[in-house]
Amino acid sequence: MPDIIRVTYDEMLEEFVRILRAVGFTPERAELLAQIFAENSRDGIASHGYNRILFFANSVKRGDVNIEAEPRPVARFGAWEQWDGQLGAGIINALACTDRAMELAREHGIGCVALQNTNHWLRPGKYGWRAAEAGFAFICWTNTIPNVPPWGGTEPRVGNNPIVLAIPCESGPVVLDIAMSQFAFGQLELYRLRDQELPVPGGYDAQGQLTTNAAAILESARALPIGYWKGSGLALMLDLFASLMSGGSSTYQLGQQTHEYGVSQVYWAVDISRAGTPAVLNRVITDTLDSLKTAPLADDNDAIRYPGERILKTRADYLAHGIPVDRAIWQAIREF
Amino acid sequence: MPDIIRVTYDEMLEEFVRILRAVGFTPERAELLAQIFAENSRDGIASHGYNRILFFANSVKRGDVNIEAEPRPVARFGAWEQWDGQLGAGIINALACTDRAMELAREHGIGCVALQNTNHWLRPGKYGWRAAEAGFAFICWTNTIPNVPPWGGTEPRVGNNPIVLAIPCESGPVVLDIAMSQFAFGQLELYRLRDQELPVPGGYDAQGQLTTNAAAILESARALPIGYWKGSGLALMLDLFASLMSGGSSTYQLGQQTHEYGVSQVYWAVDISRAGTPAVLNRVITDTLDSLKTAPLADDNDAIRYPGERILKTRADYLAHGIPVDRAIWQAIREF
Repeated sequence: MPDIIRVTYDEMLEEFVRILRAVGFTPERAELLAQIFAENSRDGIASHGYNRILFFANSVKRGDVNIEAEPRPVARFGAWEQWDGQLGAGIINALACTDRAMELAREHGIGCVALQNTNHWLRPGKYGWRAAEAGFAFICWTNTIPNVPPWGGTEPRVGNNPIVLAIPCESGPVVLDIAMSQFAFGQLELYRLRDQELPVPGGYDAQGQLTTNAAAILESARALPIGYWKGSGLALMLDLFASLMSGGSSTYQLGQQTHEYGVSQVYWAVDISRAGTPAVLNRVITDTLDSLKTAPLADDNDAIRYPGERILKTRADYLAHGIPVDRAIWQAIREF
Repeated sequence: MPDIIRVTYDEMLEEFVRILRAVGFTPERAELLAQIFAENSRDGIASHGYNRILFFANSVKRGDVNIEAEPRPVARFGAWEQWDGQLGAGIINALACTDRAMELAREHGIGCVALQNTNHWLRPGKYGWRAAEAGFAFICWTNTIPNVPPWGGTEPRVGNNPIVLAIPCESGPVVLDIAMSQFAFGQLELYRLRDQELPVPGGYDAQGQLTTNAAAILESARALPIGYWKGSGLALMLDLFASLMSGGSSTYQLGQQTHEYGVSQVYWAVDISRAGTPAVLNRVITDTLDSLKTAPLADDNDAIRYPGERILKTRADYLAHGIPVDRAIWQAIREF
């Protein structure tokens, strides 16, 4: 059984700043990065928060992340720009490109930044929240190393290429944040550690049978794309759009490296305020969400939830009562 | 057993023009619409070709489609425009908006047309092929009436909201054309008629169990979204983007009608030629497709295919040997 303690947001932020300073980031950059790691933890996304800070710090120590790099524009085509992340911190590049896509949308109605040579952006949904809280509808996605077999194959050749779609709403943004594999690898690891069955099949075992056994999937490296052939096709298309639009590496090219760095991403912002008053837009959204939430429930469900709905409740809980953290992980963070 | 005959593309086109003239379309419009129906048949998409022409003709006779309507611009925000389909033929509106999105992309690098008050566009992939053949990367999607339960619910409240992603390539476009339900309703009908099991679960039976029995799914009206909760979330977001960006009806609003008309769509074009020479772009794509196609095969698979790959082979076959058509359906078309 994990031994869980509660850590305040401020305590966590302070530890993260200390760690990021220790691996060489400037005070401002350490503060910015620490804030995102702490916010991801506060929103209940531990896998891209406190569970990842030491992995990130060690990748910086290994030299995988250029701590001084600034993203820079490569080409400007009007409402679409290409930027180069120069192998800097993925979070810093992602924040800059999210903001730049919003600027372009302010100017052209829609805006797109395609980013080459960047690194893992941690929690993708963060950028959707940021844009939606600023009043923009927003879509972004990334490619990854090959980690899912294409439909009909047994070896990883497509990425799980997470995508985010976000819509601003008065009651809080609607933010979908999903990978093209049925389960993230961190989730498979957790199910294996806890010796729990997955709720639905997440991949194939060594015999080629669909299974809910996470250990068998991690062993076979045959994770299941969402919707079988459909997710395999979606992952391919997201990769082609990201690599072609940015001029950066494709999943195939990333697979030629020893490990994942220098991925390609796209950020699309829509100045949705042009389409109507906040009252008109909110009415469309809340009518839609209400119709979902009032559908009759399937067995074993206590509620129908829309994407992002749980985040605000988790956030309020964790800010009031502290962020639950595994004691051993917190100890390791303190001792870094 | 269905009794299949082969009909040439030209014969089919001629019959379709006659039918469309008979329900009132002008010669040019009848020609344009007939061509799309015939091309969809020629590409092997019978469900959006000869299998649908009489349904379409009858919907025109009922007055569901305004045969004289022209799409018109409602608002221009720069690279993003809102258009009104004025309840005209979905194909005519879709062709116009695809072309307009490409014009906007030529001007701004990317372009988006959001379309309100349109009707069923038949085969969505058609518009991806059109744009990719003109050299554009392209994404479009539509909303629909509620026809899939949201995750955790038992009554249809989200649409299956088909989406297309297309990339131009020298050897032929890569075009993904998928709905957010694991199987289209036409497919479920076919499996039921043939008394065949679905290859993977496509929904729930009346007892709430996942099933591969198409009849049970059609009876329960509980089609499965791709990737369970993920496809349910994707369908919701695609609907919100389409309805908010176009100022048109949401899936919730379409559900208040007696049947489906006046749907909302978005068309995104990218002038991908700005990102590199054809040689550079084709290299990225063909390296990627080659890496997929050379992956070791899972049991029972003869090949790994990329989205759209089969279309060109089908097209060549059907143009050379005629389009296979059920004799009874062809008889009904001849007698209309």
